[in-house]
Amino acid sequence: MVSNIKSYMAELGSKARLASRKMASASTEQKNQTLFAIAKHLELQTEALLVANQKDMQAGVEKGLDAALLDRLELNPARIDSMIEGLKQVASLSDPIGEVNGMKYMPSGIQVGKMRVPLGVIGIIYESRPNVTIDAASLCLKSGNATILRGGSEALHSNQAIAACIYTGFEETGMPSDAVQVVNTTDREAVGELITMPEFVDVIIPRGGKGLIERISRDARVPVIKHLDGICHVYVDDRGDLEKAIKVAFNAKTQRYGTCCTMETLLVNEAIAADLLPNLAKLYAKEKVELRGCPKTTGILAGAGFDVVAATEEDWSTEYLAPVLSIKCVADMEEAIVHINQYGSHHTDSIITEDYTRSRQFITEVDSSSVMVNTSTRFADGFEYGLGAEIGISTDKIHVRGPVGLEGLTSEKYVVLGDGHIRQ
Amino acid sequence: MVSNIKSYMAELGSKARLASRKMASASTEQKNQTLFAIAKHLELQTEALLVANQKDMQAGVEKGLDAALLDRLELNPARIDSMIEGLKQVASLSDPIGEVNGMKYMPSGIQVGKMRVPLGVIGIIYESRPNVTIDAASLCLKSGNATILRGGSEALHSNQAIAACIYTGFEETGMPSDAVQVVNTTDREAVGELITMPEFVDVIIPRGGKGLIERISRDARVPVIKHLDGICHVYVDDRGDLEKAIKVAFNAKTQRYGTCCTMETLLVNEAIAADLLPNLAKLYAKEKVELRGCPKTTGILAGAGFDVVAATEEDWSTEYLAPVLSIKCVADMEEAIVHINQYGSHHTDSIITEDYTRSRQFITEVDSSSVMVNTSTRFADGFEYGLGAEIGISTDKIHVRGPVGLEGLTSEKYVVLGDGHIRQ
Repeated sequence: MVSNIKSYMAELGSKARLASRKMASASTEQKNQTLFAIAKHLELQTEALLVANQKDMQAGVEKGLDAALLDRLELNPARIDSMIEGLKQVASLSDPIGEVNGMKYMPSGIQVGKMRVPLGVIGIIYESRPNVTIDAASLCLKSGNATILRGGSEALHSNQAIAACIYTGFEETGMPSDAVQVVNTTDREAVGELITMPEFVDVIIPRGGKGLIERISRDARVPVIKHLDGICHVYVDDRGDLEKAIKVAFNAKTQRYGTCCTMETLLVNEAIAADLLPNLAKLYAKEKVELRGCPKTTGILAGAGFDVVAATEEDWSTEYLAPVLSIKCVADMEEAIVHINQYGSHHTDSIITEDYTRSRQFITEVDSSSVMVNTSTRFADGFEYGLGAEIGISTDKIHVRGPVGLEGLTSEKYVVLGDGHIRQ
Repeated sequence: MVSNIKSYMAELGSKARLASRKMASASTEQKNQTLFAIAKHLELQTEALLVANQKDMQAGVEKGLDAALLDRLELNPARIDSMIEGLKQVASLSDPIGEVNGMKYMPSGIQVGKMRVPLGVIGIIYESRPNVTIDAASLCLKSGNATILRGGSEALHSNQAIAACIYTGFEETGMPSDAVQVVNTTDREAVGELITMPEFVDVIIPRGGKGLIERISRDARVPVIKHLDGICHVYVDDRGDLEKAIKVAFNAKTQRYGTCCTMETLLVNEAIAADLLPNLAKLYAKEKVELRGCPKTTGILAGAGFDVVAATEEDWSTEYLAPVLSIKCVADMEEAIVHINQYGSHHTDSIITEDYTRSRQFITEVDSSSVMVNTSTRFADGFEYGLGAEIGISTDKIHVRGPVGLEGLTSEKYVVLGDGHIRQ
């Protein structure tokens, strides 16, 4: 293991910086071949990966990790296959790097456009799931970046075994093997160093719980692309189609409970609440979704024989990630928009309406990374949006917002062509 | 003046946040009318502006500000006219907000695109020149943002007089007058507060010396769009056209000395150094540009009768902003690229070559916000790049890089349209 964390991290950083220069001019073919080589070595090393993971699993059991954490930590042949598939899929994506856009002649005679370039060195900090090592490495590789990966301490052996496959893949194709480095220590100080080396690291992407992300954002001296919480809303307008409303509101809550784009609060125009809510409550009851309502909601639902908890002020800003839903009746769309902008997390919000003008107003005025009309919030996802991959969902406005694919890991530079042009 | 800085800044912040919501849905016409109204009030209040500026100028003289600072501080009728022209020009730019791009149908049937939206609240911290108040306010206004402006203490009266015109302009058109607020205190604590209120401020743009910007970047708890130094290079390749090389190298150094895109180091392929350098030195001598050379350069130029100082290691990373130029001979383009990436500031660098393959390689491998071929570095400017305006030049890679126009003050959100679509 590592004795001096500060110098160890600085060494990783300076190696990553050097590798990033080579990565920036790697050809699409070189990058794809490396992705395939890594896939091959994951396949060849399946046995070694399972053995390494077994060590982590045993230690996890001894440490008393709960079943959910152990499940996330586990590697099995199916999960290794899916990492291999992921690598092949990233290879099939088109290369964002080097694309030149908007080349135009200016009045002075120079020609100006923008070329897409890598960010440089990306630091990724994540928790237990070892497959993130491959996900993150492959996206950074394809986008021409170098990366330093800091996985959870409980997955150290698994991550190091995966790192060995990555290393061998790079070696085999003659690409800079320092372009992907996995931090080989569980010391927490390593994270502190990683997020405070602007000379070596251009951006940090934390993946994990809100606590982790808030801590990193607070302490980082490097830009952070972050995802905080997802308090998502569906607003059913009085000009909404009730059938669509029921379909969408049911799907947005129950298709999966634990994702950031799951609906947490349903807003209902009071003019249609009595029609809509009992129908919906019947469906939610089948799935054992606990309902917490405003006084009007509880009135309507209690009258129809449903059991509803009274929502507190705290409910409107709670991300349940569970079979729980808060429901509020509003007088009109304006009240819904004010509620969403105030209590939501600017993640994903949807309106159910057939009204043209209201749909436009909702899209304009709701300040969220995804604004939807007549669509389940569960679609807020890089794959569903056609990005081909996703390294996370940004709840920031700076640099990149919403699902982050390859393009979010890039920047642009100006390219200026002349013929001896001078400024007058 | 202000007694409790912390609560004063929080009040500005919360007003700005509220105003930003209204600004985000203001129409293009409302924004343009406000720009014209402000222009009208600047014209009507010319006398008051000059009187306020006179107070600042007198205080500046008493404080012993140097001539250059006093010149930057001064307002006169011509400068007020140019602020008025600036406002009209920003009104004539097309509105970036609300533009929807890339609306595409996905396999699931949903339609996904991106809409350009304001960032929210922008904090701008700048030094003596009061015209920045109008520049910054007009660009933030047109891009639908609210802004908090913190000008230099020496320009307080001028900035407050300009702020009064802006305020009246907003009032007159019924737009939220808190959308532009000028901090009314010279207390330094105000800056400290402004850069640590992520709940109220989305991004900070500092404009000023490197010291100011480094301090702000270090202490900010909010993303910073920053411009550090401009150590720009021209590399004359041995396959370059000598006539173009002389024109560009002369212009890049002498057209203006004090700008960030002025060339500070000239790199010359040693195969053509003996041909090129004496011709160039003759031109630089006429303009009294001091030359500092590597041993080969001093050898060639001393032999041709020119007086050249020996460059030290420090020269290669110095932004002179003055009639001083460092010159280095290099063996080939690769050495030039390594030098630029190591000693430069990733701002603007140009190659003079007629070689197709080298031009492509230089563009790909030089890691700068503007990379040029056969063009003077002096073109690196928002107006020359057709942005129509410029709030600064970013030397960052995150969010925006190079000259920053209206688009750099915006973000994008996903717009998703469906017809009752649910996730399977």
